[in-house]
Amino acid sequence: MTASPNPTAAMLVIGDEILSGRTRDSNLHFLARQLTEHGVTLAEARVVSDDHAAIVAAVQALSDAFDHVFTSGGIGPTHDDITADAVAEAFGDHIDIRPDARDLLLAYFESRGVEATEGRMRMARIPDSATLIENPVSIAPGFTIGNVHVMAGVPSVFEAMVASVLPTIKGGAPLLSQSLRIQMPEGEIAGPLRTLAAEYPQLSIGSYPYSTNGVFGSNIVIRGQDGGQVSAAMVALCDLFPGHGA
Amino acid sequence: MTASPNPTAAMLVIGDEILSGRTRDSNLHFLARQLTEHGVTLAEARVVSDDHAAIVAAVQALSDAFDHVFTSGGIGPTHDDITADAVAEAFGDHIDIRPDARDLLLAYFESRGVEATEGRMRMARIPDSATLIENPVSIAPGFTIGNVHVMAGVPSVFEAMVASVLPTIKGGAPLLSQSLRIQMPEGEIAGPLRTLAAEYPQLSIGSYPYSTNGVFGSNIVIRGQDGGQVSAAMVALCDLFPGHGA
Repeated sequence: MTASPNPTAAMLVIGDEILSGRTRDSNLHFLARQLTEHGVTLAEARVVSDDHAAIVAAVQALSDAFDHVFTSGGIGPTHDDITADAVAEAFGDHIDIRPDARDLLLAYFESRGVEATEGRMRMARIPDSATLIENPVSIAPGFTIGNVHVMAGVPSVFEAMVASVLPTIKGGAPLLSQSLRIQMPEGEIAGPLRTLAAEYPQLSIGSYPYSTNGVFGSNIVIRGQDGGQVSAAMVALCDLFPGHGA
Repeated sequence: MTASPNPTAAMLVIGDEILSGRTRDSNLHFLARQLTEHGVTLAEARVVSDDHAAIVAAVQALSDAFDHVFTSGGIGPTHDDITADAVAEAFGDHIDIRPDARDLLLAYFESRGVEATEGRMRMARIPDSATLIENPVSIAPGFTIGNVHVMAGVPSVFEAMVASVLPTIKGGAPLLSQSLRIQMPEGEIAGPLRTLAAEYPQLSIGSYPYSTNGVFGSNIVIRGQDGGQVSAAMVALCDLFPGHGA
């Protein structure tokens, strides 16, 4: 990946159900698209199980290495929801039921005639130094502590929380991209493509093979922050492989 | 996750296209299911970009921490396919076009009347100490070096390579699971569920919320290697919440 002046980010997906194959994660793909549009470079993603030590270690490693960390999963009411406590430990912060989150939940439960069980009130466990992330879907908040944004795993809630937190993050220039579908297999275009990539070191030029009814082709994607450069490289690519594309 | 006597594994997905949101990864989900069936515990997954240093660091970290590492992506013919060289460096091994891989490719190209371009021949770059992983789909092999299994990113090829490599790996007892759909929201079952989980420390008991037409419910999944324990915990769960499930 080309060096970029944009802020960097990592995602941490937390949940046994992803690693056992029970559930197919969709939050990574959603966040990746949102961050790209927002001008934040998603540089790494990790999936760890519902294991306290594994979550603490991953939060610390990613928080040190990147400008932002987005987590998904493990902040619900049941015993396997241990993310909030692990993130608090990663930052050496105290955590308990916090009055602001408690009041949000109690008002919501009351309005819906729902009992404030001990499990439900666990969702008000927020580290002392965190700020809340609004959850318009089901109220129980996420939180930001340091550079780590802690969000729910349920996709509809995760997506709503991303919408709440992204405006608080300074983005850079959006990553622009142009692509060309070339009806030739990668093996035949690799040489000229390598030369083109060397001529545009500030751009990322990716090649993604496809096959349709046994015919092999390549999607070439040119990405960069400088629209003029992206366009110039695309013109050069079209000159190399005339007659392809739309 | 409960401590398990089974071998552990990590997956490393390599590719800018996943992190930019252009492509939705499906190999993690596939591998997770295969490993669970094979009795190998997938304990972590990472996604890194097409960046040499990032790949080397991730391979070394995961190879040290787990019994097996499975990689996907970056072994094709184009300039952005840099996985093989990065893995060789992670193991301090020499890499070049290797005669056995070259012969496989040349025979395949000849049989199909395809030119052996420089790009295509890069797919014969294999570290000296690696063993090849068969690729019945498009011949260009993956390889195993140390405890790292290097495979293609194209799902059909990745899946074929997993089928080639899994029989070479000693699995443990398959992870057994039973699940119960409880038509009550997580917040109302969290207390009894926590008590049940404490009574069966060798099992993993996960709770996964759902909502259907505005009705909230929970899927409870009990996982473990001991079928008798899994069944006993399920009986206890059904006693806690009578009238649910099939």
